[in-house]
Amino acid sequence: MYTEIKIVLVNTTHSGNIGAVARAMKNMGMTDLVLVDPKSFPSEEASVRAAGADDVLSNAMRVSTLKEAIKDCELVFATSARARHIPWPIMDPREMAAVVGEVKKADSAKKVAIVFGREDRGLTNDELHLCQHHVCIPSVEAFSSLNIGSAVQVIAYELRMGFLAQAGQLQCPQWGTKWDVPLATQDQLDLLFAHFEQTVLKTGFLDPDKPRQLMTRIRRLIMRALPDSIEVNILRGILTSVDKSIKLKSQLKKEVGE
Amino acid sequence: MYTEIKIVLVNTTHSGNIGAVARAMKNMGMTDLVLVDPKSFPSEEASVRAAGADDVLSNAMRVSTLKEAIKDCELVFATSARARHIPWPIMDPREMAAVVGEVKKADSAKKVAIVFGREDRGLTNDELHLCQHHVCIPSVEAFSSLNIGSAVQVIAYELRMGFLAQAGQLQCPQWGTKWDVPLATQDQLDLLFAHFEQTVLKTGFLDPDKPRQLMTRIRRLIMRALPDSIEVNILRGILTSVDKSIKLKSQLKKEVGE
Repeated sequence: MYTEIKIVLVNTTHSGNIGAVARAMKNMGMTDLVLVDPKSFPSEEASVRAAGADDVLSNAMRVSTLKEAIKDCELVFATSARARHIPWPIMDPREMAAVVGEVKKADSAKKVAIVFGREDRGLTNDELHLCQHHVCIPSVEAFSSLNIGSAVQVIAYELRMGFLAQAGQLQCPQWGTKWDVPLATQDQLDLLFAHFEQTVLKTGFLDPDKPRQLMTRIRRLIMRALPDSIEVNILRGILTSVDKSIKLKSQLKKEVGE
Repeated sequence: MYTEIKIVLVNTTHSGNIGAVARAMKNMGMTDLVLVDPKSFPSEEASVRAAGADDVLSNAMRVSTLKEAIKDCELVFATSARARHIPWPIMDPREMAAVVGEVKKADSAKKVAIVFGREDRGLTNDELHLCQHHVCIPSVEAFSSLNIGSAVQVIAYELRMGFLAQAGQLQCPQWGTKWDVPLATQDQLDLLFAHFEQTVLKTGFLDPDKPRQLMTRIRRLIMRALPDSIEVNILRGILTSVDKSIKLKSQLKKEVGE
């Protein structure tokens, strides 16, 4: 994960929230927490909610003003839910992550801060004006205020998604899932479909005079699932067991003279 | 926001977390919460943490098995932090939102469920196998377990980002920010730069014999900020006040016979 990105919490009231923030940060690989004049910290409640992110809490820096917290930063984002008297350019979290990604790609040592306000009132206008950019999580207007731990989680998640994409580590869905068994080869699949066709001919389900789209549909269904070689072997095994049962039945029929 | 998307919580232990989930859902415009055999609900703690999302809590459906919760759904995602014995195709939350978006675009009435497991152990393998897709929030491996409220927040945020993008309502950063004053016209900007040049000639800062890149740099700086017409008027006013002060000074000089 990127280094030199601070999460700055201004005047947090509930210490449990500081713990939740530490956990959210550590989940996403972030470590630098700065507390601007917290109401009560350290606290038991913070440690409980940190749920194992005690290292983030114990390494947290404590300062008395926002100015002090961000003075060495080259890129400062304020999070804000509401529109203000004088509008400021607003980004959504994804755009913020893109900007951070570009800056970090050019120089990973550049210092970044993301600032979160009080639980009840957010940041003051003076505090917002200290920050270059405002980031807004696109909540619904009628119920816009996120829990501060949840807000940090969303921001940290976007930063991590950006980081993983840049590092080429964003796992490609499905196709990239690490699989325990090699995928079936086209040859294995063709043998499976041939076997399948023979068996449903024997059971009478496939009428050779009216084959309709049966084999095409079966082929499409199975291939859509990208079967691995064990799965193909299992299906072949099932078909073989059906073949044997049919054979057995016809032998029995012969024996009882039907 | 999309309708017909359920958030399903299985065997949640801490009722406060149910409240946090309700808040995260309402923040992102989601309303359908299903509780599978919760340990204690309703509860005071849930209402406190819901912070105003009491409607989501009071409308929550309560069922005794996961099967019952998802029986009418056409698309079911399980959230999962860990890799399992038998791998299952994994998506990240953004890919999940893209799939939901495609399904909803084709038919907004299609029912979707996103399933979250217990705080300490997640979902059992049997529960995971009831779900078509597994969604994994890309946390760091050494500290992978998110708070359930935070996990729902990330998923709901991705669904909302997908919804807003589809609805063409994703505010374009900066350029799309609702501004209180019209942007300056090119004509206003040109007059500003001409005025600026005259003034810095008078102050002596701009040497007409060695202009270097001064006016280009000033132009680039100001235009990068996309000034509005009030801001341009303010800058013109400042230049005029400088002009007057210079004039005053030279008159004074004349009067004292310098």
